[in-house]
Amino acid sequence: MSSNSFHPPVRTLMGPGPSDVNPRVLEALSRPTIGHLDPAFVGMMDEVKVLLQYAFQTRNELTMPVSAPGSAGMETCFVNLVQPGDKVIVCRNGVFGGRMKENVERAGATAIMVEDPWGRAVDPQKLEDALKAHPDASLVAFVHAETSTGALSDAETLVKLAHEHGCLTIVDAVTSLGGVPVKVDEWEIDAIYSGSQKCLSCVPGLSPVSFGEAALERIRNRTHPVQSWFMDLNLVMGYWGSGAKRAYHHTAPVNALYALHEALVILQEEGMEKAWARHMYHHGALRAGVEAMGLELIVPEGERLPQLNAVSIPEGVEDAAVRGALLSEYNLEIGAGLGELAGKIWRIGLMGFACNRTNVLYCLGALDAVLTAMGAKIDSGRAVAAARAWYGANG
Amino acid sequence: MSSNSFHPPVRTLMGPGPSDVNPRVLEALSRPTIGHLDPAFVGMMDEVKVLLQYAFQTRNELTMPVSAPGSAGMETCFVNLVQPGDKVIVCRNGVFGGRMKENVERAGATAIMVEDPWGRAVDPQKLEDALKAHPDASLVAFVHAETSTGALSDAETLVKLAHEHGCLTIVDAVTSLGGVPVKVDEWEIDAIYSGSQKCLSCVPGLSPVSFGEAALERIRNRTHPVQSWFMDLNLVMGYWGSGAKRAYHHTAPVNALYALHEALVILQEEGMEKAWARHMYHHGALRAGVEAMGLELIVPEGERLPQLNAVSIPEGVEDAAVRGALLSEYNLEIGAGLGELAGKIWRIGLMGFACNRTNVLYCLGALDAVLTAMGAKIDSGRAVAAARAWYGANG
Repeated sequence: MSSNSFHPPVRTLMGPGPSDVNPRVLEALSRPTIGHLDPAFVGMMDEVKVLLQYAFQTRNELTMPVSAPGSAGMETCFVNLVQPGDKVIVCRNGVFGGRMKENVERAGATAIMVEDPWGRAVDPQKLEDALKAHPDASLVAFVHAETSTGALSDAETLVKLAHEHGCLTIVDAVTSLGGVPVKVDEWEIDAIYSGSQKCLSCVPGLSPVSFGEAALERIRNRTHPVQSWFMDLNLVMGYWGSGAKRAYHHTAPVNALYALHEALVILQEEGMEKAWARHMYHHGALRAGVEAMGLELIVPEGERLPQLNAVSIPEGVEDAAVRGALLSEYNLEIGAGLGELAGKIWRIGLMGFACNRTNVLYCLGALDAVLTAMGAKIDSGRAVAAARAWYGANG
Repeated sequence: MSSNSFHPPVRTLMGPGPSDVNPRVLEALSRPTIGHLDPAFVGMMDEVKVLLQYAFQTRNELTMPVSAPGSAGMETCFVNLVQPGDKVIVCRNGVFGGRMKENVERAGATAIMVEDPWGRAVDPQKLEDALKAHPDASLVAFVHAETSTGALSDAETLVKLAHEHGCLTIVDAVTSLGGVPVKVDEWEIDAIYSGSQKCLSCVPGLSPVSFGEAALERIRNRTHPVQSWFMDLNLVMGYWGSGAKRAYHHTAPVNALYALHEALVILQEEGMEKAWARHMYHHGALRAGVEAMGLELIVPEGERLPQLNAVSIPEGVEDAAVRGALLSEYNLEIGAGLGELAGKIWRIGLMGFACNRTNVLYCLGALDAVLTAMGAKIDSGRAVAAARAWYGANG
């Protein structure tokens, strides 16, 4: 076989991520590669740390991107904070809580599962019950924004409960960071990880993380070595830590970090509060359109993520055929359901750069047209008008 | 603090990697992001696998890039092939053998170290002695091309010895792949990992790996789960495996894979044999220039990597001052020594796209000028002429 250069189609990315990438970020990505110990690069790394502190709303010194995707950020949190024999309470209300369980068990610890229905927030009462039933638990882990369902949990309350029972916390903010408030210091989150390719609108491949003092103390006091060399924060910090001297650990993904830097500069320019408001605003219009079609958002109001909308698939409609038509005819990607929601929902993302009026109207028009052509039982021809009316009424 | 867009200086990268990236690769990197389950992307992944099979000279089905830097590729090999209680023979002749030891121990196994001097190849006799002394060892790991010293070991012989004693093999080909022959099938290597940023001249951040049938069988027959979720090949293969249906594992670094695809297309266009010959050719000229200055290559002939030249620092010369002057005045990066060779050698890379006549002449001229200005005891003013003469004599 002989291969030629690959030229991807130009898509509109309204799935669960990657989301549309700002052209400024793509341009930054392609700047000339320099060495990972170059003083110019080290200076940029320092800026990335400060920009990430802003995104996470924290002063945590240990705030940096892991050189791998979000699932490696998750694993970095678990392998550093969990020791063999530990008991960890994991709240599961979707796919990613299940992945946390895997991480706990592979670190030699026991996972106590707190189960909530997929599509609902984590119930603080259930967490409290589990904390009371397991006074020897040392850690609580939960997903702030469940990417598999679009449910938003009350991180502040969950962290508070964990702390009242002497547990540290690991929070999955992969889909929340940049789309809804994530306040690491105010909420006293101990360890948190996110991904570059959701509301930060950077390319996929990096996982921003942040660790507070209590987490660092636990890491320093470990009796078992961290099972991963690549993810051992004691080693990673030699490269990402402060001070002029950076010790070589691994070769940083230099160009990907240019891109993250640019994405974070863009976030800083807009301002966090404005970014959060923008996500809520366009979500309002998308919701108006979806509901005008007669479709439902499966997550109850008050627990819904604005940036990831789980829409129930109308009866008799074939999931894959609809997504296939959107992709081939409209170059539009929306997400399928995962796990027990596969075939039952679509996940429509409005993340970061992709969260704008053009995308909302484009997606609603395309979905309306494709569903109508397939003879689906929807209120055809109303979605776009409803969204436009919503924009008109909400300035 | 408020940050602006970062514009890196334009460097010539002649250190141990990252090496100069072909502009075609940077351009590919910045192409529009698409979904990691997009059919167009899945098609490209299949091409990447075939192109990597060519680079590794293998038909191994499980040949793919790990979504993280080379040290994660190393860890992927160890956590999948090593089980708690195993005995692993690790040959150490530089920094990266030491990192292998770390990986073995963190996987709960015992590392039997075979030590060779830094700057020398692994001695097959010492490996054979260790294999005889430890008949219960199950795995042999060694570095084909030691990035910290520029020494090339005889992979074929070492693998043969390991097999004769019933051991599988893990081979570090981070710096060798694309620069010198790496023949996975012919040499019967069981597991191998490399990096994107050396002789493949791609951006840093990916780690190509390949696993043969014996390695897969050992992984399938594990009694302990793989300790890493992110690196568990059973899961990774659900995404990178063959067949139309790709299961979501983690979000692939989409744009980085565009870049790797392009870098591999470029390698295919040139042809492996021609790439190997090109590295040897320009190494000859660099060597002529270095020796004309009166400097020494620390690795004996026959064990030298053409793509990474460890040059002894002349007495009385301050390592950091020279590298600083090359960087600030010439925008030229060469590498420092690592570990016990820190301050004693420079590492001059001629890797992939950076391996060309322009770079050889530029580097020799710059080094000659900087050392002369510092009053170093070298034969000044001869290096460039010697290299030019070498090119003249060798066509």
